[in-house]
Amino acid sequence: MGAELGELSIIADGGMLVTDGLIVATGPSGEIEKQMSGDAEVVDATGRVVLPGFVDAHAHPVFGGNRVAEFEMRARGATYEEIAASGGGIRSTVRQTRAATEDQLLARALKHAAWFIRAGTTTVEAKSGYGLSVEEELKILRVTRRLNEETPIEFVPTFLGAHAIPEEFQSAPDGYVSLVIDEMLPRVADEGLAEFCDVFCENGYFDVATSRKILTAAKARGLDIRIHADQLTNGGGAELAAELGAITADHLEQTEAPGIAALKRARVQPVLLPGSVYALGKARYPRAREMIEAGLAVVIATDFNPGSSPTPSMPMVLSLAATQMKMTPAEAVTAATINAAYSLKRGDKIGSLEAGQLANFVLYDCADYRELAYWFGFPQAHSVYLRGERISW
Amino acid sequence: MGAELGELSIIADGGMLVTDGLIVATGPSGEIEKQMSGDAEVVDATGRVVLPGFVDAHAHPVFGGNRVAEFEMRARGATYEEIAASGGGIRSTVRQTRAATEDQLLARALKHAAWFIRAGTTTVEAKSGYGLSVEEELKILRVTRRLNEETPIEFVPTFLGAHAIPEEFQSAPDGYVSLVIDEMLPRVADEGLAEFCDVFCENGYFDVATSRKILTAAKARGLDIRIHADQLTNGGGAELAAELGAITADHLEQTEAPGIAALKRARVQPVLLPGSVYALGKARYPRAREMIEAGLAVVIATDFNPGSSPTPSMPMVLSLAATQMKMTPAEAVTAATINAAYSLKRGDKIGSLEAGQLANFVLYDCADYRELAYWFGFPQAHSVYLRGERISW
Repeated sequence: MGAELGELSIIADGGMLVTDGLIVATGPSGEIEKQMSGDAEVVDATGRVVLPGFVDAHAHPVFGGNRVAEFEMRARGATYEEIAASGGGIRSTVRQTRAATEDQLLARALKHAAWFIRAGTTTVEAKSGYGLSVEEELKILRVTRRLNEETPIEFVPTFLGAHAIPEEFQSAPDGYVSLVIDEMLPRVADEGLAEFCDVFCENGYFDVATSRKILTAAKARGLDIRIHADQLTNGGGAELAAELGAITADHLEQTEAPGIAALKRARVQPVLLPGSVYALGKARYPRAREMIEAGLAVVIATDFNPGSSPTPSMPMVLSLAATQMKMTPAEAVTAATINAAYSLKRGDKIGSLEAGQLANFVLYDCADYRELAYWFGFPQAHSVYLRGERISW
Repeated sequence: MGAELGELSIIADGGMLVTDGLIVATGPSGEIEKQMSGDAEVVDATGRVVLPGFVDAHAHPVFGGNRVAEFEMRARGATYEEIAASGGGIRSTVRQTRAATEDQLLARALKHAAWFIRAGTTTVEAKSGYGLSVEEELKILRVTRRLNEETPIEFVPTFLGAHAIPEEFQSAPDGYVSLVIDEMLPRVADEGLAEFCDVFCENGYFDVATSRKILTAAKARGLDIRIHADQLTNGGGAELAAELGAITADHLEQTEAPGIAALKRARVQPVLLPGSVYALGKARYPRAREMIEAGLAVVIATDFNPGSSPTPSMPMVLSLAATQMKMTPAEAVTAATINAAYSLKRGDKIGSLEAGQLANFVLYDCADYRELAYWFGFPQAHSVYLRGERISW
């Protein structure tokens, strides 16, 4: 938290002993060699940086189609309203996701999984929220379950039924809120399809009172809470996250000092998503420095999605964090690994290279970890290991 | 030029016939199949986009070391002056480049060449400018010559002796200008080590009068002209480029309407470098839309260098062009291929897929060229061909 974000424990000429998918020891390579059994397989990482696999704590990896037409409209100067009027926005992805079968969605998501791995990411949060009906939300969460069966990555499922009001409820949004609370949440909880519940808390989507109602119901069903807060307006989302004891408050582009203080009091982790600020061509990044100085356990994530943040690359997010939010490379690495792991309630299993943790690690083609944030636009991952096994994807 | 930048000639289900490294025909794949000889090798690009290899018309690919320490200082909020006082800036790279042998520089540049290829770039402009003495500038240009011998990429050499005043001439900058004009330029021209001459035209570096003097001397020696113009201040660099008949004026972050009009009158191509604006954390991008609307043949390039733009990725530059400069994906592709080729006086050989051009092309793992600018932070190149041969690097 706070200043600790900048304190990495770097072992020069380090070694790591892995057995049965778990880290057994780390230390100077000479020490590790002494502990090795004779038939151990040796991976030579000379001249390379070894880091924990990135933990991407805010992502929307299961969706149909893309939004490249809308992207082009935005480049031509179209406003948000013009894009919405042309059928763009979240609803465009909802239409394309509903039109896809479970197998089609899985095939697309497997492609995304390969992108994540190549960028050095080994754990990905996976939000629903492009279905917006009972069956379509469950379909997305079932695809997420299949991703866990069919890929080496761990996908952590989050139910985001309250992502937008679907077209068919436009004139009766309260009916959709009832559907989320009374039909979706019980099914999601009963079938064990999600660990977290998230809400897009924003006027015109789900206001603070409605968000409180949905998230309180989710807590009652045993789900932990994440909130899309203060992305477009400073509407009290950070304060709501604090009030409800959310694990994370995400986005926070518009959050100011009172919201930061509320997060601190309640020990809520901010999840900052600079990729969406960049991709939407906006200038106002969240106040990472103030959050770090306030002592918060800041997380950074891709927000991978087809509308506002079409990047699966955590190294790109490290670059954005350093150049646009003035986080140091060390702070960005902490925010993208151990802090992100804690925000997914997995800080005791992943996100660091320590005895007892899963052996999820990545070798990079550079000699200094800071180069991951410095060179940008291309991944430098040399090889990716999950539970001690090298992954080729 | 102008509105034509947005007009790509796309052949759906297209084919291309290549013989002896040259494109013989393009057209509907059915037509191409009829022209094929029986023993032709067939590359199946079904579901993929095929584009000309990117032409990166402004890059500094030969240098020693990196500037990751300075990058970290900037993330911590250090000012330009503080970085300079700590020994950072161009002079830091000059020290590291001078300290490297020709072989060491080549080894590093070969790594950069691999990065370029993986991102889909097949031609790269290569500036000197980190030597700043007769022998050290020649060393960089000789490394560039060796890159042309040892890699499949074509590197187009530019002499940039007037990149900065070296430390040893700090108290006598006129002496350095004389060295550039009277010793470096004759050697570079006589040994045929460069096609272009460039100057960093900026107060505190080489002012307009000094730049005019150097570039006029370069023209007299048969070199064509490029100018680093109006990057930090609107100091008349664009107007100087127009006055001297430069092929390109590069950067132009501070150029306003009169400078744009001057470029138009003299048919100078603007080379826009959004990567450096991004990486320096600045907000003022060059006015791409005004330049396109003025009818200019806009080029975009990486500015690949270890200080202000550590990216070799043209797709990253396409993303920056679309999201930050409001160029459409089509305009960005034109600016990164055929326009860039003309800016290197190679429009009749590269930058388009047409009969008679070199068969430099790239297959991408996407079905729509717009996806190259839309997804960001990772290259989507599937395979890269130079003169008809698939390159593995």
